[in-house]
Amino acid sequence: MERAAAKPPPPPAPPSDLDRHCLARAVEVGRRGWGRVQPNPMVGAVVVRGGEVIAEAHHAEYGGDHAEVAALASLDDARGATLYTSLEPCSHAGKTPPCTEAIRAAEIARVVFWAPEPGSKQGGGGQWLRSRGVRVDGPFGTRGDWVAENPAFFLAAAGRAPYVALKLAVSLDGMIAPGGGKRAWLTGRESREEVHRLPAGVDGVLVGTRTWKADDPMLTARGAAVPRLPPVPVLLDRRGDLSAGARALQGRSGTRGIVATTAAQAARLQRRLGRSADVVAVPEVDGGLDLAALMAELRGRGMTSVLSEGGGILAMSLLRDDLVDRLYLFAAPVVVGKGGVPAFPAGAAPTSACAADPGAAAESDEAVRLFKGWKSRLDPVRFGSDTLIVLDRGD
Amino acid sequence: MERAAAKPPPPPAPPSDLDRHCLARAVEVGRRGWGRVQPNPMVGAVVVRGGEVIAEAHHAEYGGDHAEVAALASLDDARGATLYTSLEPCSHAGKTPPCTEAIRAAEIARVVFWAPEPGSKQGGGGQWLRSRGVRVDGPFGTRGDWVAENPAFFLAAAGRAPYVALKLAVSLDGMIAPGGGKRAWLTGRESREEVHRLPAGVDGVLVGTRTWKADDPMLTARGAAVPRLPPVPVLLDRRGDLSAGARALQGRSGTRGIVATTAAQAARLQRRLGRSADVVAVPEVDGGLDLAALMAELRGRGMTSVLSEGGGILAMSLLRDDLVDRLYLFAAPVVVGKGGVPAFPAGAAPTSACAADPGAAAESDEAVRLFKGWKSRLDPVRFGSDTLIVLDRGD
Repeated sequence: MERAAAKPPPPPAPPSDLDRHCLARAVEVGRRGWGRVQPNPMVGAVVVRGGEVIAEAHHAEYGGDHAEVAALASLDDARGATLYTSLEPCSHAGKTPPCTEAIRAAEIARVVFWAPEPGSKQGGGGQWLRSRGVRVDGPFGTRGDWVAENPAFFLAAAGRAPYVALKLAVSLDGMIAPGGGKRAWLTGRESREEVHRLPAGVDGVLVGTRTWKADDPMLTARGAAVPRLPPVPVLLDRRGDLSAGARALQGRSGTRGIVATTAAQAARLQRRLGRSADVVAVPEVDGGLDLAALMAELRGRGMTSVLSEGGGILAMSLLRDDLVDRLYLFAAPVVVGKGGVPAFPAGAAPTSACAADPGAAAESDEAVRLFKGWKSRLDPVRFGSDTLIVLDRGD
Repeated sequence: MERAAAKPPPPPAPPSDLDRHCLARAVEVGRRGWGRVQPNPMVGAVVVRGGEVIAEAHHAEYGGDHAEVAALASLDDARGATLYTSLEPCSHAGKTPPCTEAIRAAEIARVVFWAPEPGSKQGGGGQWLRSRGVRVDGPFGTRGDWVAENPAFFLAAAGRAPYVALKLAVSLDGMIAPGGGKRAWLTGRESREEVHRLPAGVDGVLVGTRTWKADDPMLTARGAAVPRLPPVPVLLDRRGDLSAGARALQGRSGTRGIVATTAAQAARLQRRLGRSADVVAVPEVDGGLDLAALMAELRGRGMTSVLSEGGGILAMSLLRDDLVDRLYLFAAPVVVGKGGVPAFPAGAAPTSACAADPGAAAESDEAVRLFKGWKSRLDPVRFGSDTLIVLDRGD
């Protein structure tokens, strides 16, 4: 380590309006990497000279150029310019040469970054650049906002993989479905396109027993975003009922689907499913599979992110086990009314929930506790007449 | 009418990307008029030459310059420029000279407008300008979107005053309050600032009996927006219990508050309230005041917009009487749980709602019907961790 690197960085100046604007733009540009970059984070870079944007780029593919390098590569001459990036430039050679070298070689005058590189033992690339005379400002914003932008990446860096996202469509009265076993789309076409885009950005897609039995879902990303690697289907099957013909297990090249069952069922189920899936044995708790143990299994397989696609029972189990890091809530402008299935039932069992029971008011309520401290850090988005609200666990 | 005015306008060309951007900007700039322009609509104008914005203005005050005139007045020379405006320029002299004259005098080459002037007998200002050689493109967008931007204005033009907005704060499980009469803020500080800003944009603020009895609210706009005229408090008081000391009736210069009661109570209540309020007699229906009759009374007094500030019983009555045009829904990231007060109770009485009653699933449900066809046309906004969803009645 060079002696200069030991100097503490100067106290950060607050970002200017232009700085804020360009950092926000870098974050936005970075989102184009959805589905192509994991386990790397989505990163965008903007190069500005004389108040004009002269280049924009994003980290477009795992193993490919980082955003900063891609932006600089698009310019004949970036000397004296300011480079904005949504993540501190890396100073380590991984799949690609370090960004810091490219920045120095391009004679960039100033680097402004939003999120710090997590867990860098040598100090991040910012420190490396500062010690070589480049003006570096950052990080800006808060850890909560950085994590919200790239939750799987930051939680994995903190040893908390896999990050678990839960997708729910709810009515104005907080229901996920009409009662009586009826099925209905609460949300509109535009929402469902976004729902199909979400799986592209995660390593695995998780569904409960009732959902695969009822829907036989494909669990592929079918939206505008084509994932670099299709997400791995993870199916719960405590009783060992799955057959190799399940659509989620078909036509998969490379990584196989994962089926979680009990130790008692595992060998028999693996024989039946053959090479179409990897069966993993998970302990039982309270009449269901131990979801925390399943997550540990997925972590052991290198998965950093899982999206729960359904259904309601799995959703409540994940919430109660405190395993959910993010909620994608699609709020539809409909009221389900009597007999509906509540998304967040009070008490232990959804079927025992009765909002009209006055004696219940004073009881402790698990669902209330569950959402203590949750925050909305990403802006809501309208899809048709539905609203996507993204809620992140506070920490 | 000049003969040229009888020519049909040319078939509209689709707006370019620049057109769309500048119209959206005009709409956004127009919103600065919130609280200052009613019964006029909020209107913004943007002047562009050579791809650069050279002026922006909004209709800033009822009786003052329209947005187009204000934008042109800020320029020494607008010749050959394009004027974007969120509402078709007026061709009639009202409080101010017609905008069309100012546009022609400034030698604007092209006018692009978003919403048409409603109910113009002579054809709108667009037709007037076209017949004088100005290129005019518009309207663009849909009636639903125009109405969503200035609902009171467009509904009044269609003979449907007053426009009624309902503000509700709901939890993720669709509750407006904990049970047992407990009171709690579901939403955070940032939402409450927006809640205080909303009344500035309406003519009247409506509250039910329980709310004024419990809260003795001031019903003033206390946010960043200072209204040109403070909204008129409208209090329901079927039993005639109000006293002149109620805070909503204090310190009002000009228009007095309005108190609705029964014919039997009206004279006695007016004596008690004296000059602090105008008591109006309203028929009774189903044990409450006839809200449609109250709205007709408010329409007779020239009110074009009313915001219901609470409480839950009034909200449900307004919804059931099909009187609500807009719902401002502040969704908070909390779960109220057992015993909570549902915002949209199934069936007739909130206290009889029980989501767990399986036999109820097949029953007809008024709340479900109520929201058929409602749409979200304005983008949701995040206030802290809360999300404001704006829902408009479909039509």
